[in-house]
Amino acid sequence: MANPAKLMDNEVLMAFASYATIILSKMMFMSIATAFFRVTKKVFANPEDCESFGKGENVKKFLRTDESVERVRRAHLNDLENIVPFLGIGLLYSLSGPDLSTALLHFRIFVGSRFYHTMAYLLPLPQPNRGLAFFVGYGVTLSMAYSLLRNRFYL
Amino acid sequence: MANPAKLMDNEVLMAFASYATIILSKMMFMSIATAFFRVTKKVFANPEDCESFGKGENVKKFLRTDESVERVRRAHLNDLENIVPFLGIGLLYSLSGPDLSTALLHFRIFVGSRFYHTMAYLLPLPQPNRGLAFFVGYGVTLSMAYSLLRNRFYL
Amino acid sequence: MANPAKLMDNEVLMAFASYATIILSKMMFMSIATAFFRVTKKVFANPEDCESFGKGENVKKFLRTDESVERVRRAHLNDLENIVPFLGIGLLYSLSGPDLSTALLHFRIFVGSRFYHTMAYLLPLPQPNRGLAFFVGYGVTLSMAYSLLRNRFYL
Repeated sequence: MANPAKLMDNEVLMAFASYATIILSKMMFMSIATAFFRVTKKVFANPEDCESFGKGENVKKFLRTDESVERVRRAHLNDLENIVPFLGIGLLYSLSGPDLSTALLHFRIFVGSRFYHTMAYLLPLPQPNRGLAFFVGYGVTLSMAYSLLRNRFYL
Repeated sequence: MANPAKLMDNEVLMAFASYATIILSKMMFMSIATAFFRVTKKVFANPEDCESFGKGENVKKFLRTDESVERVRRAHLNDLENIVPFLGIGLLYSLSGPDLSTALLHFRIFVGSRFYHTMAYLLPLPQPNRGLAFFVGYGVTLSMAYSLLRNRFYL
Repeated sequence: MANPAKLMDNEVLMAFASYATIILSKMMFMSIATAFFRVTKKVFANPEDCESFGKGENVKKFLRTDESVERVRRAHLNDLENIVPFLGIGLLYSLSGPDLSTALLHFRIFVGSRFYHTMAYLLPLPQPNRGLAFFVGYGVTLSMAYSLLRNRFYL
């Protein structure tokens, strides 16, 4: 009998599951942050979203863009662009049987760098804070990709 | 011999595979919807896309934004932002050996909520239809994340 | 003892890991391309990014949009929208025990079509080059989804 729960007895995969869940939950929080800024600043993208603030012509003044909202949305999109490769490459890397301490180092640095990236984006911190956070996470993902392709290259 | 096909004998993983495939196919349909609105409304983002409608200066009038197209694109992006966490957390949750009926409940509510979200976005339905659909799917993903971290926390 | 490294002895999963890593690395390169165009064209989205070019009022002239930058960003978003379904459906398809040569054909055509899509978007090539590249990749993903649902349908 195949028992996928057994798969999760593997420590690297368990660690990946924990870090992936944490960073995805953080990314999901960006939706809430966007909604918070939209409501507090009264800035909406859809007419049906601001009907409680007014009807007809009155609605149009809420259909605009605002720098705080756009900033959160850019941070969210940057998360998506970087967390998707981490998820795909990280899962396959975890299945390729890496050393536990090396894998943990990758996962921890990536998750830390993305939290720092979001903080640097939203406060905002002066550059190169955000740029460095981006490149650290980027480097971690590429390092896992390299390790994966070196050990398991099959085209 | 390792036989990954055996992995798929597990019912939770088989169910996850079916629901994930359905919701990803739905998300892919948003590309077709965008293309449909772009062509019928003659609204394009790239000069090379509207060359069949005219040349030179004539092209510029098709390079604009349109509310119907932007609405589909926002619905598509919202799908991406919510389906990516569902995929990552849902796959790891499925491997963590949950109860089949609990897992099915999670998958079914999530997929239903995303279909309803798209319908509420595109028709559009008045709020809070779309907002509720969003939060139902969001809650399902967080519930899987909580269940995963409670059982398999490893940092 | 469960040994997930054994999972990777499976040739289809190894091939999927290689192709997924390659196409995700290509997608990550779009971030670098965006940054390159932002710096060379001096077009920024955030005030803190262009502080080295000037202070105060002077900064505002760099906060604009540029067609080259927007083109790379659209290509990047299109990658995200198409590579996410490929990752999710492709991984589950690989676990469902398909024929190796059929699976390789799917992976190779998808990866090739996305490279061609990016090239057609950035040069740009006249339509229907980009459109065809998009639909080829789209068709490959749908073909894997169909094969998965036909063999392992469970709702």
